Amino acid sequence: MKRDLKLRDVAVLGVGHTKFGRSPEKSLMDLFGEAALEAIRASNIEKERIEAVFVGQHVGELTDGVSNFAPFAAAEIGLAGVPAVRTEGACASSSVAFREAYLLVATGVYDVVLVGGVERLLSAGTALGTRALATSADGVYEFNAGLTFPGIFAMAAILYSQKYGIPLDELREKMAHVSIKNHKYGALNPKAQFYKKYGDLKVEDVLNSRMIAYPLTLLDCCPMTDGAAAVVLAEASIAEKHVDKPIYVLGAGLSSAGGIYRQRDVTVPMSRVRSCKMAFEQAGLTPEDVDVVELHDCFTIAEIIASEAMGFFEFGEGADAVAEGKTKIGGKVAINPSGGLIGKGHPVGATGVSQIYAIVKQLRNEMEPRELQVHNAKIGMTDTLGGDFGTICNIILSTERRGEA
Amino acid sequence: MKRDLKLRDVAVLGVGHTKFGRSPEKSLMDLFGEAALEAIRASNIEKERIEAVFVGQHVGELTDGVSNFAPFAAAEIGLAGVPAVRTEGACASSSVAFREAYLLVATGVYDVVLVGGVERLLSAGTALGTRALATSADGVYEFNAGLTFPGIFAMAAILYSQKYGIPLDELREKMAHVSIKNHKYGALNPKAQFYKKYGDLKVEDVLNSRMIAYPLTLLDCCPMTDGAAAVVLAEASIAEKHVDKPIYVLGAGLSSAGGIYRQRDVTVPMSRVRSCKMAFEQAGLTPEDVDVVELHDCFTIAEIIASEAMGFFEFGEGADAVAEGKTKIGGKVAINPSGGLIGKGHPVGATGVSQIYAIVKQLRNEMEPRELQVHNAKIGMTDTLGGDFGTICNIILSTERRGEA
Repeated sequence: MKRDLKLRDVAVLGVGHTKFGRSPEKSLMDLFGEAALEAIRASNIEKERIEAVFVGQHVGELTDGVSNFAPFAAAEIGLAGVPAVRTEGACASSSVAFREAYLLVATGVYDVVLVGGVERLLSAGTALGTRALATSADGVYEFNAGLTFPGIFAMAAILYSQKYGIPLDELREKMAHVSIKNHKYGALNPKAQFYKKYGDLKVEDVLNSRMIAYPLTLLDCCPMTDGAAAVVLAEASIAEKHVDKPIYVLGAGLSSAGGIYRQRDVTVPMSRVRSCKMAFEQAGLTPEDVDVVELHDCFTIAEIIASEAMGFFEFGEGADAVAEGKTKIGGKVAINPSGGLIGKGHPVGATGVSQIYAIVKQLRNEMEPRELQVHNAKIGMTDTLGGDFGTICNIILSTERRGEA
Repeated sequence: MKRDLKLRDVAVLGVGHTKFGRSPEKSLMDLFGEAALEAIRASNIEKERIEAVFVGQHVGELTDGVSNFAPFAAAEIGLAGVPAVRTEGACASSSVAFREAYLLVATGVYDVVLVGGVERLLSAGTALGTRALATSADGVYEFNAGLTFPGIFAMAAILYSQKYGIPLDELREKMAHVSIKNHKYGALNPKAQFYKKYGDLKVEDVLNSRMIAYPLTLLDCCPMTDGAAAVVLAEASIAEKHVDKPIYVLGAGLSSAGGIYRQRDVTVPMSRVRSCKMAFEQAGLTPEDVDVVELHDCFTIAEIIASEAMGFFEFGEGADAVAEGKTKIGGKVAINPSGGLIGKGHPVGATGVSQIYAIVKQLRNEMEPRELQVHNAKIGMTDTLGGDFGTICNIILSTERRGEA
């Protein structure tokens, strides 16, 4: 994005979110419609003012026999006819949709748009779900070699241990604190898949749960999830006329990488470093300015790696940071107070917009229950990872419009 | 798109296109890379100036076990790191990618981008390919009811016959002229799947070929195809510095519809009517201004329906028009001189950009062989249909920049 490009201010109006978990009786369309109509109602705007629909959707072809989802989604909510675009970037699908939508509002192509995401993985079953997710690694050199995502992040944990000289047993204990924290928050969040579950884990519980891919146990992993999320985005002055607390988009980064065989070191994912740089530069902010973060904790080690590459901690210090409580609500920076992917669930195509939803609630000081509210949160940020760092997208949100630089 | 929006002029630089047909030995990535590198070389521009990659891809998850295609595609051509976005809108996937890319260059977000599309359907086999394509109809009410695309367009042909009082046997003969024309052009086009095949069909050949879905025979249908196409797009003054004959984008339309159970009359697809209106209004042109068209002839009846909804003929007169030769090279408007989907092939995700490729060759007066060149073509247009009219995208291209209106 060019530095001298004049962009209009853009803000989030209403947001919508299904209960994450198992929804076998609801189609992709049902889930999408539920979240989208909640977002539209909360926006206090006539539905007819929505000029385009953007949808993030990962593997509906495999789980539900559904492609070409965007036009059907638009029709489902009474908007047949508007330009409707599906983006697919694995787990970052709806963050990519959000960024595309944001850019087209910021540049004046549209004034008001809807962005949503949806997935049905839990109802698809573990075998189909795992196979579907595995398609987002390199299709020739990784998928065919049997590499799945628990395997990729297990290798990342071992590399992290060796690189920073942290014995693996020690690292596993530190990683367990990610699981404990995110499950604790998820257990409090009524939208979370694990609401009222796993709220009081001990380190031993995580270490001793079923081994998935050494050194990752079941409680190091996010679950399979059904769910949807949606938001309405508009040019800022329009947003201000319709809602009391518009939440402004200050920065949007997107970067890419090839398969991990092309990457130097997955503990320092360059796609994330570049995407965050893009978002921070656009926002004119640094990691120190961020109060609350929803980042891509598909596995405990993934949260640690992300917290470093995003700039909240030095490389090699993220594991200590979580073990020392620096990423709790009230710590240096609150990470995943919604429960994250681990506690809230991970309906892949919905995850990016679900993160936006959570940050918007925080910045509006409307997070429920109140013990999940980050005190005086003014700047929030999302981080969504697609595949094995192939796609990374970061969004920075604020209670205030951007300053006139 | 708002009427008072100031957009920069945007032009196509180099274009690339694989041989369409069967390529079992090439992966999606191989095919994409081949087309993309040809487009970059033909652009006379340093690859490093490409700031983003947009890819249209339909069903790689099903045919090749590959999702999250865009970042891998960018890495494959040496552009790892740039924002890389996959759009999926069934058969219109890469037209949607082209429009997104065009808008982000026109509004100044990027100066130079690459747009491509790719699919492997012939190598996937007929059963898997048919099932994959069927996912782009409504997943609950159509796909599950057994509706496939030959069925949808067979019903459209019967409706067309009844609505306009053209006996079905007569209509079938008129439809056969679409097949004869497009196969004739495809047989001359070295990039076409049916190069040197079916170049001299008679009406009886079409009527008597194997019945697929009454009244559509095999020769009324486009084939399954492997292939890729790519183009480089840039702000117009940049394009003018690098290539002798930049081809300018004057208009880009996109519209949506729900499943056919939500549509009043598929012989008058409202998504296409709206999308064309959007494109023509932006370009300040009318159908009379268009010299050459590449449109979505997935079936013979589909070309007739499209030629009417795009405004080249009155509703109900498209069948006569093709039978009378009005859509041949040298007729009122040249339709599908590349061979179209029927003669050139239909590698779904690649089709939209393949149409752009064909129009660019025509407007540069570089169509090979020369008997496929439309004399003095100045304005060209593409039309790509995704699903059962769910997604329609139209692009208008010109040898000249837009006039200062």
